[in-house]
Amino acid sequence: MTGKTISEKLLSEKSGQDVRAGDYVEAEVDVMMTHDVTGPLTFEVFEAVTGDDPELVDPDNTVITIDHHAPADGVEAANNHNLVREFADEYGAQQYDVGDGICHQVLVEEGFVSPGDLVIGADSHSTTFGGLGGFGTGVGSTDLGTAFATGELWFRVPETLRFEVEGELPDGVYAKDLILKFIGDVGFDGCTYKTAEYGGSAVEALPIHERLVLSNMAIEMGGKAGIVAPDERTVDFLAAQTGERPEIPAYTQPDDDADYEAVYTYQAESLSPQVSTPSNPENAVPVDEVVGTDIDQLFVGTCTNGRYEDIRIVADIIEGERLAPDTRMVVVPASRSVYKQMMDTGVMETFVDAGAIVQSAGCGSCFGTHQGVLGDGDVCLATANRNFPGREGSMKSEVYLASPATVGASALYGEITDPREVELNRYDDYVLEGVSA
Amino acid sequence: MTGKTISEKLLSEKSGQDVRAGDYVEAEVDVMMTHDVTGPLTFEVFEAVTGDDPELVDPDNTVITIDHHAPADGVEAANNHNLVREFADEYGAQQYDVGDGICHQVLVEEGFVSPGDLVIGADSHSTTFGGLGGFGTGVGSTDLGTAFATGELWFRVPETLRFEVEGELPDGVYAKDLILKFIGDVGFDGCTYKTAEYGGSAVEALPIHERLVLSNMAIEMGGKAGIVAPDERTVDFLAAQTGERPEIPAYTQPDDDADYEAVYTYQAESLSPQVSTPSNPENAVPVDEVVGTDIDQLFVGTCTNGRYEDIRIVADIIEGERLAPDTRMVVVPASRSVYKQMMDTGVMETFVDAGAIVQSAGCGSCFGTHQGVLGDGDVCLATANRNFPGREGSMKSEVYLASPATVGASALYGEITDPREVELNRYDDYVLEGVSA
Repeated sequence: MTGKTISEKLLSEKSGQDVRAGDYVEAEVDVMMTHDVTGPLTFEVFEAVTGDDPELVDPDNTVITIDHHAPADGVEAANNHNLVREFADEYGAQQYDVGDGICHQVLVEEGFVSPGDLVIGADSHSTTFGGLGGFGTGVGSTDLGTAFATGELWFRVPETLRFEVEGELPDGVYAKDLILKFIGDVGFDGCTYKTAEYGGSAVEALPIHERLVLSNMAIEMGGKAGIVAPDERTVDFLAAQTGERPEIPAYTQPDDDADYEAVYTYQAESLSPQVSTPSNPENAVPVDEVVGTDIDQLFVGTCTNGRYEDIRIVADIIEGERLAPDTRMVVVPASRSVYKQMMDTGVMETFVDAGAIVQSAGCGSCFGTHQGVLGDGDVCLATANRNFPGREGSMKSEVYLASPATVGASALYGEITDPREVELNRYDDYVLEGVSA
Repeated sequence: MTGKTISEKLLSEKSGQDVRAGDYVEAEVDVMMTHDVTGPLTFEVFEAVTGDDPELVDPDNTVITIDHHAPADGVEAANNHNLVREFADEYGAQQYDVGDGICHQVLVEEGFVSPGDLVIGADSHSTTFGGLGGFGTGVGSTDLGTAFATGELWFRVPETLRFEVEGELPDGVYAKDLILKFIGDVGFDGCTYKTAEYGGSAVEALPIHERLVLSNMAIEMGGKAGIVAPDERTVDFLAAQTGERPEIPAYTQPDDDADYEAVYTYQAESLSPQVSTPSNPENAVPVDEVVGTDIDQLFVGTCTNGRYEDIRIVADIIEGERLAPDTRMVVVPASRSVYKQMMDTGVMETFVDAGAIVQSAGCGSCFGTHQGVLGDGDVCLATANRNFPGREGSMKSEVYLASPATVGASALYGEITDPREVELNRYDDYVLEGVSA
């Protein structure tokens, strides 16, 4: 008998059983999340299943954000916002309003997620929480509405693909490049209903904001979860926010002889900045294959790369410069806290002086509802996670995905530019271990 | 024979004729403006009337802003933005992009308008320029497209209503309160195709940003134009921006015995803060008649009250405080320059710390397309200019109009509050005479 993966251990713990990939379990959920798009249906289901005596099983760990159409971009959106407010008010859920932040970032910043937690969210990028050593996954509103009442949900214990990166990442190569490379290698459905477990010395060396990128985009290869085993960096990060040092449960560490479905091994030194070309994240190519591609719009933000450190990388590159002629840039931080850090550190000023715009935290620009929708023929280079046809606007627009450094370098020239061509401050210089740090 | 009004003198000058109210003239236009909503039709007309040899008659004074759906809130908006960019590029018009500012503010800040100018814009609030002692008026895209080619447009010389305010405005009473009062007194159509000429010692004492408020909202009583005779304050203001001190043409000063259709006279000391109740600006009442009305959303911005001084009034009131529970606030400065002043002076931080959101400059929140659309049953208190049914979103929402001070005071309590109940810094302390000051 071989050893267990993180997913097998964690779901054994949460179900009180000794389970393996392929088993079905009923597991206790630690944190539940929904937002202004998936919330209303979740509320309906919750009220239907609870009947005359509706009560949240764990209101302190039931979080609802207003982020997807924030601020409201239409009457329906505004009405949904009001439904969120009323529900949270009536049942005591933890509610975050317009501008407070993107759901995934809010949960990370506000200390809702600890290593080893099982987190479900009615949003596909709920895999993000694996960056803190939890099992985070997206679920439908129906499942979530039921879990709101019971605190439990069924899972099929996923098989695991292990992504190992050994060595030291070269300058200009970030977690975003890693995950685009992984997705490119296994394909957009290569990890479907499996866990992506990330490890190796290069991953262990990543600050938490970078680990969150790896986990966030696990879903872009179909991943049920994307997990980095928590360590002292994780604890330091959470301590900086909450003032408390969480324990690292033993079940968050994979066995040395864990039974992986496959192990992908990379040498960090051989990796280069990646760009995913239109219109699938799996179209990852080394940046030099697309250098010179004309760009109309640059987009910096999202739950993938909308943290302060991401945005700062871009700001450091463009500081004192104007955007290239005929380009524009939309910057949307992932939370109010990030927005404030941008103000406090002069990063916001850098963007505004360069000709960019900075909006309050939200998801709109990423999924094409408002905040910089693309028109016919527009080409965008984005720090986002998806570039499907029409994702950011017109079906006749195109989106390339890249790291903040690649977006920053490209902003100077108005075309896709290798970030190694510009002076880069490694995030090591200003990484904030915990938002309140 | 009695004397002449400003409008009669100015249109005599611009048409090279000696004309009176009721006469029709063909006048030379000094500045022309359109934006992303009215631009595309303007371009079509321009190209239709110019045929094979399209040429702007005065590209240096032809200004096109991207402000109404900025940033793009849909594919159609994004396509219109691209039309603006292409037109400006092809014909050499002065183009301002997403986040640069609201058309009226851009023209004021960038020194396009001087005392005595005849300014037409394909936007109804083009009356704003009267605050600098010009004749500004809104025209249709068809008229404007033709003027793009010819530099001329026909006008019926308007009759003039004179609004005289003598004395010193009490604390808590601003230009916004004056104009709401005027509109309430004459009705929403009481000045239709007439010029509102503002004067008296209280108007003369107003800084330019306040005069612009009076002129901006002339259209809300049907005004063709709303003019304050330019003076040394006007010259100082423009000099601070452009470095040049414009002449004040004699034709911008009304004759003492000018033939007004009516003169409305007010004693400043007797005036109180005004609120226009839903759903017409003419529903102006003293604030104490609506004190206590519950408010869901506060909106600070627009071409009426989105200048730094306006926003600063609100910030000074809420500084160090949180918004009242169950209220939210959207702040949208009128230009990039205002946005930068907000950053530089800590005003932005005040808002973000209070729980408000700050967006890049634009018009969207004011006319309900994005940036904080109201849902069914939402009640908004706004520094805006219009509160018609559905103006800011749902037909089942309500909008009250007030001064920045009233909005700021109300933000503290979540209900309409008399600004005289809170400590107010008069704008005299920080008025910026010219944006670059």
